[in-house]
This record gives sequence, structure tokens and C-alpha cells, in this order.
Amino acid sequence: MSGGAPTPAGNIVLRTAAADDLRAIVHLLADDALGRARERDVDPLPDSYRVAFEAIAADPNNTLLVAADEDGTPVGVLQLTVIPSLTYQGRPRALIEGVRVAASMRGRGLGRRLFDAAIGLARERGCHLLQLTTDKRRPEALRFYQSLGFVASHEGMKLDLSDQAKVPL
Amino acid sequence: MSGGAPTPAGNIVLRTAAADDLRAIVHLLADDALGRARERDVDPLPDSYRVAFEAIAADPNNTLLVAADEDGTPVGVLQLTVIPSLTYQGRPRALIEGVRVAASMRGRGLGRRLFDAAIGLARERGCHLLQLTTDKRRPEALRFYQSLGFVASHEGMKLDLSDQAKVPL
Repeated sequence: MSGGAPTPAGNIVLRTAAADDLRAIVHLLADDALGRARERDVDPLPDSYRVAFEAIAADPNNTLLVAADEDGTPVGVLQLTVIPSLTYQGRPRALIEGVRVAASMRGRGLGRRLFDAAIGLARERGCHLLQLTTDKRRPEALRFYQSLGFVASHEGMKLDLSDQAKVPL
Repeated sequence: MSGGAPTPAGNIVLRTAAADDLRAIVHLLADDALGRARERDVDPLPDSYRVAFEAIAADPNNTLLVAADEDGTPVGVLQLTVIPSLTYQGRPRALIEGVRVAASMRGRGLGRRLFDAAIGLARERGCHLLQLTTDKRRPEALRFYQSLGFVASHEGMKLDLSDQAKVPL
């Protein structure tokens, strides 16, 4: 295979994100029609990203999962949150946020592998349910989640708390 | 006012739930068309509720908020979860789950007071966004959340992880 050939999905390693991955993760978050207006993929990165990364890494209920290519660079990411809950007889539930796969890596089953890993983690933690919300402006994402077995049984509702609404929802 | 008169909403106190509230909270969760099949409002309570309560109480990112009547009994409940996040330049978001108001206490602004308190807590923690999912089978809940300013911009998707699906979603 030539050096410029795309990485086959088989060479992808799934692991918990490390601090060194932060720049690549922010690049993934920003490289998206909706994410572009929300993120600041600049050098140096705004310190708020590092603060958030450290809060996630320090919290046993939050896991930032990355799919890294053969160079170790994240090309896919998602965040899993385990939520202790009284409902359903006290069983925890799990939430997924911030799902991205690099445009160049789509269609190779990478998203599915990230979700398989997240589902495994959620089951290990005793979660009976995995949930997410997906923007109604992303029909292809909706179809992907449906292909994984997710059911759109709920409305996903958002309330903007940013006083000046500088960043569009 | 006679002893049997309903408690006016003004006598309601909002506070964090205590261990002694657990029975009343489970009763609220079970006293609901969808919750009835999911919960076990029996004496003694299944221990799983106590385990979950302790996990919530021990987690600084989770708050179980109750509205208590003049006897101190919870007649409304919701859970707020603060989620550290890389998205939106590393700003945390907040999630609400498990919202219930006693049937006898509805229509008096109790739900709104619980949400006002939750929104205040979310803002104190720097959250830019508050989110929830609401079952499409609860149109009155959807209208209530819309009246608070929530926008149904997303699909709320659920994946059942319980192997035997004993408890309906």
C-alpha cells in the first residue's frame, strides 16, 4: 500500500483519549457543518478545551473514547457518560455525546466500532439503556443510529443557557 | 384552611433530596402511566433504589432536587446531571431526567419552580445548555417544556441494553 493510501479500518485502535490527543479531537469536532461555528480549532487552543478534558478524565462516569489511526492520531471520537438513576428500579443509564468520524474515514464501519465499544462499557457499568440526541438537521446520523438499533421514541429538547447566545445551538 | 385542603404551591420548599425521601420519591416515579410498569413501589423497597440514591448523592455532577410539601414530603422531583464536555469550546452541558410532579399537585407551577431551580444550578456550574428527552407519548410534557423555552430540535433516541427487556422502555 502506498504511503498516501487511506488507513483500512482494521488498523484502527480504540482507546481512551489522552491529553496529547486534544488538538486532533478538537479538529474532528470543528470539521463538521454544525461544529464549524461552535468550535475554535486554532493554535494555541483556547484553554477551555484543556480544562474540559481534565474534568472528563478525572470523572469515572465520563469516558472520552477515540479511534486512532496507525500513527496514533484520533480519527473518530465519542463521549460516554454513565448516569446513576433512581428510575427503572435504580438502574444507571448511559448517554453518548460528541460523536465525530473524520470525513476521510467514513463508510468503513468506524462509527459502528466506536458504538460497539461504548455499548460494551455501558453494559459493564450495569446500564440498562443507552441514549443520545441527534440534530434533526442530520438525517444521515439518524439513519446510522437507527441501523444500530436506536429508536427515536423521544423528542430531544434543548434550552440555550448562554446569556448572549454567541454560539449557535 | 381545613386540614384536608391542598397545599398551596407557596408552601412548597425546594431542596436536595435526603435518604429519608426515597420512599416518597419512588412513589412519585411509580405514580405515572409509563412509570407504573417500570418501578417497584413496594415495602420494603428493592435495595437497588438505595444503592442508586447513594451513587447520586455521592456524585458532585448529579443533583436530585425535590419539591417538599409542608410536611416535608416530596411531591415533585427531578434529577440534574452536569456533563463536562469538549464541544462548544469545552463548556459543560446539563441534562434533566426523572421529572415527576404528584398528580394532586399539578397545575400550580411546581414543575416550573423545579425547572427554575435546576436552571439556576446549571448556570452556576457554567453550563451553556440544558437538555432533556421527552417520550413522544407525553404530548402534555412536550408542551410544558416548550413553555419553558425548550426547543425540540433533536430526536431523542434510546437503545435498550437490558438483555431480556423485562422492563418496557
